[in-house]
Amino acid sequence: MLLLHRAVVLRLQQACRLKSIPSRIYIQACSTNDSFRPQYPSLTFSGDNSSTRGWKVMGTLLGVGAVLAYQDHRCRAAQESTRIYTKEEVSSHTSPETGIWVTLGSEVFDVTEFVDLHPGGPSKLMLAAGGPLEPFWALYAVHNQSHVRELLAQYKIGELNPEDKVAPTVETSDPYADDPIRHPALKVNSQRPFNAEPPPELLTENYITPNPIFFTRNHLPVPNLDPDTYRLHIEGAPGGQSLSLSLDDLHNFPKYEITVTLQCAGNRRSEMTQVKEVKGLEWRTGAISTARWAGARLCDVLAQAGHQLCETEAHVCFEGLDSDPTGTAYGASIPLARAMDPEAEVLLAYEMNGQPLPRDHGFPVRVVVPGVVGARHVKWLGKVSVQPEESYSHWQRRDYKGFSPSVDWDTVDFDSAPSIQELPVQSAITEPRDGETVESGEVTIKGYAWSGGGRAVIRVDVSLDGGLTWQVAKLDEEEQRPRKAWAWRLWQLQAPVPAGQKELNIVCKAVDDGYNVQPDTVAPIWNLRGVLSNAWHRVHVFVAP
Amino acid sequence: MLLLHRAVVLRLQQACRLKSIPSRIYIQACSTNDSFRPQYPSLTFSGDNSSTRGWKVMGTLLGVGAVLAYQDHRCRAAQESTRIYTKEEVSSHTSPETGIWVTLGSEVFDVTEFVDLHPGGPSKLMLAAGGPLEPFWALYAVHNQSHVRELLAQYKIGELNPEDKVAPTVETSDPYADDPIRHPALKVNSQRPFNAEPPPELLTENYITPNPIFFTRNHLPVPNLDPDTYRLHIEGAPGGQSLSLSLDDLHNFPKYEITVTLQCAGNRRSEMTQVKEVKGLEWRTGAISTARWAGARLCDVLAQAGHQLCETEAHVCFEGLDSDPTGTAYGASIPLARAMDPEAEVLLAYEMNGQPLPRDHGFPVRVVVPGVVGARHVKWLGKVSVQPEESYSHWQRRDYKGFSPSVDWDTVDFDSAPSIQELPVQSAITEPRDGETVESGEVTIKGYAWSGGGRAVIRVDVSLDGGLTWQVAKLDEEEQRPRKAWAWRLWQLQAPVPAGQKELNIVCKAVDDGYNVQPDTVAPIWNLRGVLSNAWHRVHVFVAP
Repeated sequence: MLLLHRAVVLRLQQACRLKSIPSRIYIQACSTNDSFRPQYPSLTFSGDNSSTRGWKVMGTLLGVGAVLAYQDHRCRAAQESTRIYTKEEVSSHTSPETGIWVTLGSEVFDVTEFVDLHPGGPSKLMLAAGGPLEPFWALYAVHNQSHVRELLAQYKIGELNPEDKVAPTVETSDPYADDPIRHPALKVNSQRPFNAEPPPELLTENYITPNPIFFTRNHLPVPNLDPDTYRLHIEGAPGGQSLSLSLDDLHNFPKYEITVTLQCAGNRRSEMTQVKEVKGLEWRTGAISTARWAGARLCDVLAQAGHQLCETEAHVCFEGLDSDPTGTAYGASIPLARAMDPEAEVLLAYEMNGQPLPRDHGFPVRVVVPGVVGARHVKWLGKVSVQPEESYSHWQRRDYKGFSPSVDWDTVDFDSAPSIQELPVQSAITEPRDGETVESGEVTIKGYAWSGGGRAVIRVDVSLDGGLTWQVAKLDEEEQRPRKAWAWRLWQLQAPVPAGQKELNIVCKAVDDGYNVQPDTVAPIWNLRGVLSNAWHRVHVFVAP
Repeated sequence: MLLLHRAVVLRLQQACRLKSIPSRIYIQACSTNDSFRPQYPSLTFSGDNSSTRGWKVMGTLLGVGAVLAYQDHRCRAAQESTRIYTKEEVSSHTSPETGIWVTLGSEVFDVTEFVDLHPGGPSKLMLAAGGPLEPFWALYAVHNQSHVRELLAQYKIGELNPEDKVAPTVETSDPYADDPIRHPALKVNSQRPFNAEPPPELLTENYITPNPIFFTRNHLPVPNLDPDTYRLHIEGAPGGQSLSLSLDDLHNFPKYEITVTLQCAGNRRSEMTQVKEVKGLEWRTGAISTARWAGARLCDVLAQAGHQLCETEAHVCFEGLDSDPTGTAYGASIPLARAMDPEAEVLLAYEMNGQPLPRDHGFPVRVVVPGVVGARHVKWLGKVSVQPEESYSHWQRRDYKGFSPSVDWDTVDFDSAPSIQELPVQSAITEPRDGETVESGEVTIKGYAWSGGGRAVIRVDVSLDGGLTWQVAKLDEEEQRPRKAWAWRLWQLQAPVPAGQKELNIVCKAVDDGYNVQPDTVAPIWNLRGVLSNAWHRVHVFVAP
């Protein structure tokens, strides 16, 4: 929440500069509103008080400031409230040219004039353009305050047609017909199977990615599993016993909770496509997200089935309950040594951010393998076995491997490369966006950085001149456990825009605690599947005159 | 040995092509020499026989071939054998212009005409130019055969002056006066303290680096320790007991033997200097070597002193018995978690390649921390203790850390960066050398690749056009244990030289099993201490017309 509030404040501060309104006007306006005092007794921003509290107060007050600032819109509310619109009409209003409309419940609002004044930034409100606000307000609880509803009421232009609630027609022969409903903010790369990423504006807004916008990488239709009859089959070791675990059984193992970033091997593939065509989904920078996972440790469950670490190399094979029309299930494996190592903290997770796993993320149970590529975090887990060799699944042996740029589909030998397990160091810029125009004076650059294998990110360098000179970004203060830095670090840099500069070539690169760095350019790491795309991230922006 | 023989054969094959002598002439000449048959009964090179044996036979026979080929030099031997030369005279003959002289025992040889015909390659013989052959023949036992001595005899031009054996004057106030005598092949970067690297021609000639040419990184004078009175002090845990271990005591712990590559953080620093000045020794590509180390496991010794892994972060601090004039010893530390992990295989080593440690490498005991920067492998080990914080040694806290290129000596904050432990993925080309002229037709490129933390090198890409197109090099077949790939991989590529090409920009880059790659260029990883120099290695060569 702290980060969110900070973001709001920074945005507002920026907005204030843009509009040449000194920010103290807002604060003064707010500080006359005594109704907030009981909740947040101190309005002082001096170093004597907790800065957290200060930010919270400011964030809350800014909403109130917005009410005061925009009260001239009030007059519009009543006169247009009786007009009726269809959902289709609403959905065609998504740009300044057409007008920007949103709905809340059955009410329709024209927020065209408010977009630029949105405390969270215009781009975030634009994510909801043409549709309902609820999915976004559900993510950002700051909206659930009376003054926000008051503000919105001023922009009401009518009601949704009450007859406009036709259930979508379901094609029963469609294997994806039973897939869950998704959050509208997700940028969809493929509907069937469903693959989607959060937009960059939301991606680094929170250290923990809210469940509804966590990137989704499905290979097959989403199974609809009954938690009461669900069983996880653990194949026993020779001399041990096989287990058939219900959800309750799994809950009876000691519960562990860890924060882990998942990243798809194809994250940032779209940059490889720009070099030369690849086979794969066009992920931008959002095939990565972070959640707090809870569940039983895989090592505890395996031990109960009689497994132990052995001298010879072995692998733990996972099978999902999602399957293709031939009945082939998704599968993957990890080395037994990792699975049995308590320090590797591999989980059979049944909770994601304090909730049961959402269906898209493996309800009721998925594997979480900290520091390892997303493809091994098998969802809708049905079966676990220990084998002398890696899983024979297509996704273990014929996909998710890296090759030299010289290898093409005629020459590729999948057996010649190891399956991807740990991922290399990665970072990306989420703000500003490529092609955007930034204000002169100062630019704020934000992004994420992460590395595989529990290696902590120790530094992010940012360049405004395409990599000639560098500045060190400020990393978030989240805890980084040695050798278990499973989660990303969010970073930002406020940097002066060199006077007279018309454009900026912004670049970021991260360093992990093995002092691994990202490569400079994409072409030399290009590979036919477009995986492992971790060159410097580059964003080109224009500077407002 | 296999590698060595292969190298000899390849060289000879090349030499044959150069001189337009079909290689079968050599083989035929050799195969008439029956005296080798009892030792190597088969001369067949077909796939039915072990290729190892084939190479061995060929390698041995090539030496004989050389004898036959150069017998026209025989006449020169007797007539000049009585001339007397001083060592100084010999040492001034090191080039084709002056003539190239070497000595063996008291005999002096003019090998100017033989250099280009040396089966091991001209550059290797040139390493001995102007001095004794013995140190090199000691490394490469292939020379200890009668036909090699016979061949050499043909080039004899005289004897060394018997009065020319003046002991070097010793400056007793010089703290380095008692340093050991070093191998003449070492390229010295600093005499006091002694820092030297093997030349690239020798570096990758053997998977295991011979002790005399193993790179040496000393920070202080070399202590001269008596193995009988040597004691290693292990500070006990609270409730445990401190230990004072003799060498015999250490031998009583279970003995472990592992092959580990050591690399200095400053390896390839000279390339950073080309970008901008740095503080540090001008290491080229040779601050890396590989040995088979044997000793007691640190975890066993620590356990005996009552130490165990604890929840809070702790560090194992090492103190050397080398010290500066103020009595400050060399020191460093590693995390306790690594020290106590049997899988991390940290050794208190007393053997290097089957011999007691040489004095330059820590006699009688040094630490070997597989996968970790050389600076933590403390030599002449005197004391081990477990502390809540890292070693307070200068070399732990004020050196061996990486920084952004933007940080200079005015702005550096050593506390802001973690001490280097694991090193990033690295590779370099050892053949051909920068500026060399290679034959048209085909070029052989050789080098090494290694990564920190036990991560195996899975691929080396080589480019002849500066990085535009790539070919995959052939890696050696040495065992790579999963998660314990502590040693380098030697690689080579035979590639056709594109017709009409006048020069080649040869580049190599390696990939480890975390799919970490090397950065493209040096400038963006430049840092004020010139450490962690692991950009693509580039060699520019000319192609003979």
